[in-house]
Amino acid sequence: MRIDKKQFAKRLMQSDFIQILMHEQPDGDAVGSAYALFAALEKLNKTIRVDCFDEPPKNLRFITKAVRFQEFEPQLTVAVDVADIKLLGDNWRDYEGKIDLCLDHHTSNTFYADSTYLEDRAAASEMVYEVINELGVTIDEYIASCIYVGVSTDTGCFRYPNTTSDTLRIAADMMDKGIDAQAINKAMFETKTKSFVKLEKLVNETLELHFDERCAIYTITRKMFDKSGALESECHPITAASRQIEGVLVGVVIKEQKDGTFNISVRTNNPLNASAICSKLGGGGHKNAAGCELVSSLSETKAALLKVIGDALNEAV
Amino acid sequence: MRIDKKQFAKRLMQSDFIQILMHEQPDGDAVGSAYALFAALEKLNKTIRVDCFDEPPKNLRFITKAVRFQEFEPQLTVAVDVADIKLLGDNWRDYEGKIDLCLDHHTSNTFYADSTYLEDRAAASEMVYEVINELGVTIDEYIASCIYVGVSTDTGCFRYPNTTSDTLRIAADMMDKGIDAQAINKAMFETKTKSFVKLEKLVNETLELHFDERCAIYTITRKMFDKSGALESECHPITAASRQIEGVLVGVVIKEQKDGTFNISVRTNNPLNASAICSKLGGGGHKNAAGCELVSSLSETKAALLKVIGDALNEAV
Repeated sequence: MRIDKKQFAKRLMQSDFIQILMHEQPDGDAVGSAYALFAALEKLNKTIRVDCFDEPPKNLRFITKAVRFQEFEPQLTVAVDVADIKLLGDNWRDYEGKIDLCLDHHTSNTFYADSTYLEDRAAASEMVYEVINELGVTIDEYIASCIYVGVSTDTGCFRYPNTTSDTLRIAADMMDKGIDAQAINKAMFETKTKSFVKLEKLVNETLELHFDERCAIYTITRKMFDKSGALESECHPITAASRQIEGVLVGVVIKEQKDGTFNISVRTNNPLNASAICSKLGGGGHKNAAGCELVSSLSETKAALLKVIGDALNEAV
Repeated sequence: MRIDKKQFAKRLMQSDFIQILMHEQPDGDAVGSAYALFAALEKLNKTIRVDCFDEPPKNLRFITKAVRFQEFEPQLTVAVDVADIKLLGDNWRDYEGKIDLCLDHHTSNTFYADSTYLEDRAAASEMVYEVINELGVTIDEYIASCIYVGVSTDTGCFRYPNTTSDTLRIAADMMDKGIDAQAINKAMFETKTKSFVKLEKLVNETLELHFDERCAIYTITRKMFDKSGALESECHPITAASRQIEGVLVGVVIKEQKDGTFNISVRTNNPLNASAICSKLGGGGHKNAAGCELVSSLSETKAALLKVIGDALNEAV
């Protein structure tokens, strides 16, 4: 069943023991949404827990450290920013049929929850902001920091095409709550770990340009992870960079997994459709950002990708 | 004499033939401010010209192409975003004593104009937005694009510490005027030329870390410019990256000039003071961004820099 923000807030009001779930490998929007909701509901004297299959990233410790784990039997289980129940992590089956509410901004949401509040917004945190206003809770500096982290993460700090004037106005309101936006932006967007600097140098050597330089491919091997000490969760800027090269319509990052398979990230500039490319290889995603997994050698993986991308370029232009 | 936005608008209203001046090597805020004011004053049936010593950058053609040059004797000469008359370019003496009005956001403004409207704002374009509202001109899509380009340029697309909630709200208002923020951000922030990609790869090889990895130095030689085909005006992202490495307090880029001397850019994280470092080497600038020129060999240049930076690190911590 689809519900609106008023109904979503009403359901929260009716429970006193609430579990909030984030997706595996949580990012700034997942953490921002979950912890903003956590803090707002605590102000209403409810008992709240945030659960996640993975540890949140280190640069979000300034948010997650505010919260301690609480053991209790939840009356209500709420998933935020989770498009599909399988994204809860390897233990997702434990939650089958047990998720009461979902708040999400992915139009690909599979409606696994009893009731879903879904909008096509830049970030789930924007919707949490609306819900907190419905709850009548005053947004303090901590909640404002959570929401700012969420909306800035999912918009690349207000740079990506999903940014709307609503996004900017919500961020402005959060700045007026006294948050340290300077420190947040520094931690989130202006800091490269030394291991990432090493990885970036190795990966830049692998750049290949195909189809009259309209397709860029970067490859990240296990050896490069080992040599640099970088984590898989640090690769996002490389993925973003793949489509930033002048004239490139399709940017690809091939990442070797621990089990020897390959994780493929595809980023496109219009008119190329990343989701259409990845769906031909068993994956999917959004119009300009999608992914798939391939089980074969690196050269076979590249050949399969180049075939599909070549066809897409021919169709598009 | 310092004036406010009402007085600034009133002075513009009193003239029919107005010349607008930009600083040499104009950036997005200079062009955005000047052309927004141009378009607003044309709507009031005034005859306007924008003059600049240098050609505006290519990625701002979508703004500057809207305007044709007009020959006339100005009744009023207005400088926007120009902190010092010498920044008008090699012909600056032609304007001595002839500048009636200045609108600027640099607190270092030297008050070379008859009347100056000065505020400590993120961008001059924010102040132009206020002036246009004072003039009673309705902001159309073109003017909105100019103002958006100005505020986004000077804040690194809302990422730098100078960004305020006012900045975000002005940008939101501009988005609501129907501008193509997606195309603007793509052109301004999300495109790397192929020559820059080549340069970046060469420069990344030169990274040196000193003083317990608290100082990062990148070196760009003439050979690297020649090999990559990149322009000196494209080096800004490398300068920005130099202080983004985790734990680095001082980021330095040494750029070999055509005449064999070295241009040094210093970027710091608090508490290190870039201006203090550069002033010891005959240069200057802002607290976190400064520069100087050195005339010696590369190894002597590095040694001089390391001496001053080592002292600054010892004093600071």
